This record gives sequence, structure tokens and C-alpha cells, in this order.
Amino acid sequence: MIYPIVISQFSKMLGNLLTILDKAAVHAESKKFDVDVLLQARLSPDQFNLMRQIQVACDTAKLAAARLADKEQDAPKHEDSETTLGEIKDRLQNVIDYLHTFKVVDFASAAERRITQPRWKGKSLSGEEFLIQHALPNLYFHVTTSYAILRHNGVEIGKMDYLGALPYKQ
Amino acid sequence: MIYPIVISQFSKMLGNLLTILDKAAVHAESKKFDVDVLLQARLSPDQFNLMRQIQVACDTAKLAAARLADKEQDAPKHEDSETTLGEIKDRLQNVIDYLHTFKVVDFASAAERRITQPRWKGKSLSGEEFLIQHALPNLYFHVTTSYAILRHNGVEIGKMDYLGALPYKQ
Repeated sequence: MIYPIVISQFSKMLGNLLTILDKAAVHAESKKFDVDVLLQARLSPDQFNLMRQIQVACDTAKLAAARLADKEQDAPKHEDSETTLGEIKDRLQNVIDYLHTFKVVDFASAAERRITQPRWKGKSLSGEEFLIQHALPNLYFHVTTSYAILRHNGVEIGKMDYLGALPYKQ
Repeated sequence: MIYPIVISQFSKMLGNLLTILDKAAVHAESKKFDVDVLLQARLSPDQFNLMRQIQVACDTAKLAAARLADKEQDAPKHEDSETTLGEIKDRLQNVIDYLHTFKVVDFASAAERRITQPRWKGKSLSGEEFLIQHALPNLYFHVTTSYAILRHNGVEIGKMDYLGALPYKQ
């Protein structure tokens, strides 16, 4: 179930963020303010602003795939230098494209692989623990907080924009 | 991987919400206001308030487990009648206890089971689609939005309160 979560669903959620950002741009235009103002908005003075929330959502998805497939050295680098809506949309699309380079077989040993990162100072999680207790809650935290910042600022988006289309069968 | 997500992780996240609500109560006491005021707070006039966010988080976890195990008729009923912090904490604990009644074998056929609910008017998702594209993003949406409402109102909580403890190995 790792590929459907980390590749199919994470790329879907980043795509939903692109849709939500387009709605934010329409809102800003109709209210005659610069949409980039929204990228500086935050819910609390000591919480990340919208730009940083999206950057971290991108990194969470990118590094979850890269680490679970043991291909971290191949992951695209991003310098967190975006300042405009167009630039952060490009980064979202770049990560979506990167996710689509993975195949199901890349995750064959992922659940048991030991995963670590520099800030954990030598400690590690199993791939399954990393996915379920770290990557998933972090990805959704930053996507939902991005949504919440825009919602709080009056952008007309709804839960369906966040969830995206569902593959219902009759 | 269904049990570790829907039972272990969802009950952990509801437990993290209990911890966060206790910090909200401490904050309210130190600022000398009634903590129940926070339960009415929301980020936008037409978005659910904190109480409703927690109620929906509870229902999302409860019904994900019940539907995936084909035991929806046995799930505990909740009338959405809570008005106080103590009452919504009791509901969170009640759902955590309910989740712990499931066993791994209850989800043996869950990924392929067709899942539906009244509002879908006869349409359905596979268990795997329901889990990955509906239950997971909804659970994290309502937990993160609860966190965001409290953070926006000055409660001193951090990302670690949201994530909870991680099972690192040296």
C-alpha cells in the first residue's frame, strides 16, 4: 500500500494544492490585491507562513518517496528561495513530476528499511513507522494548514477542493 | 497496513488531541477565561468550530474502522450533544477505547471490500480507496484544523504535540 499512499495520493494532494492556489489567485484579483500577500499570511506569529507550509509539504512528499525507496541522493534539490505564486506552483509541479518517476517495485523493501535523517542524530524508524507516524501526519498537517490559512483569509475554497475527486463506482 | 493506520495511528492522533485539549485548558486557566469559549472558536465564519472539528475527527476514525471491518452496526452512537471540554474529551476516549476492540484479522478483507455511506447515494469506493483517499485525509484535516484553531487562539502547543512520540531506535 506504500505506492498508492506516497505516490498516487501525495501527488494528488499536491495537485489539489495547485487548484487551491489558483482559486486564491482568482480571489486576490477580484479583491484587487497582490496574491503574493497571501503567501506571507500565517495563523499565529510563531507559525510558518503559507509559503513555508507549501515548501515543507513539497519536501515531506519528496523525501518520503526518496527515503522509502532508498534513493535520497537522486531527489531534486530545492533551495526554499521561492517568493512568488508562480515559483511555488513550479515547485509543486516539479515534486509531482518527480513522484511519478517511481514504480511500485521501488518500494518492495520499504516497510522494513531503517529510515533516518540528520536531525534524528543516528536514531531511526522502520519504513512503516516513518510512513504512518511521520510522513503521513506531516504531509497532511502542512496541506491542511495551507488550506486553513487561505480559508481564514476569505478565499472561497471547500472540503472538496482539499480532498479532490474520488474514484466512486456506481 | 490497515490495522497500524486505522487502529494504532488513528487512536494515537485522538490521544494527541486529548493532550492538546489539556494544554488548552491550562492556557485558559492562566488567562482567566472559560476554556469552553475555545470550543466555539473557528477560523472562518462558515467553517466548523473546534467542537465540531473534534466531533467529526471522532466519527471519521470510528467509522473508518467500523466500515473497513464491516461492523458498522456495532459502532457506538454519538449524538453530537457535547457542550463542554469534559464531554468532548469523554467522546475522544470512548472512540479510542472502541478502536482498541479491533484485531488485525478484522481487516483481512478490508482493502477489497466495497465501502459506501448514505450521502454517496449508492456509489462506493474500494476499502483501499476509502482508506487512502477519504478516511486518512479527512482524519488529518479535522485533527490539524483543531490544532490550528487553538494555535490561532494563542494556546502554546507545537508540532510535537500534534505528532506525539515516535518509536525511534538507536
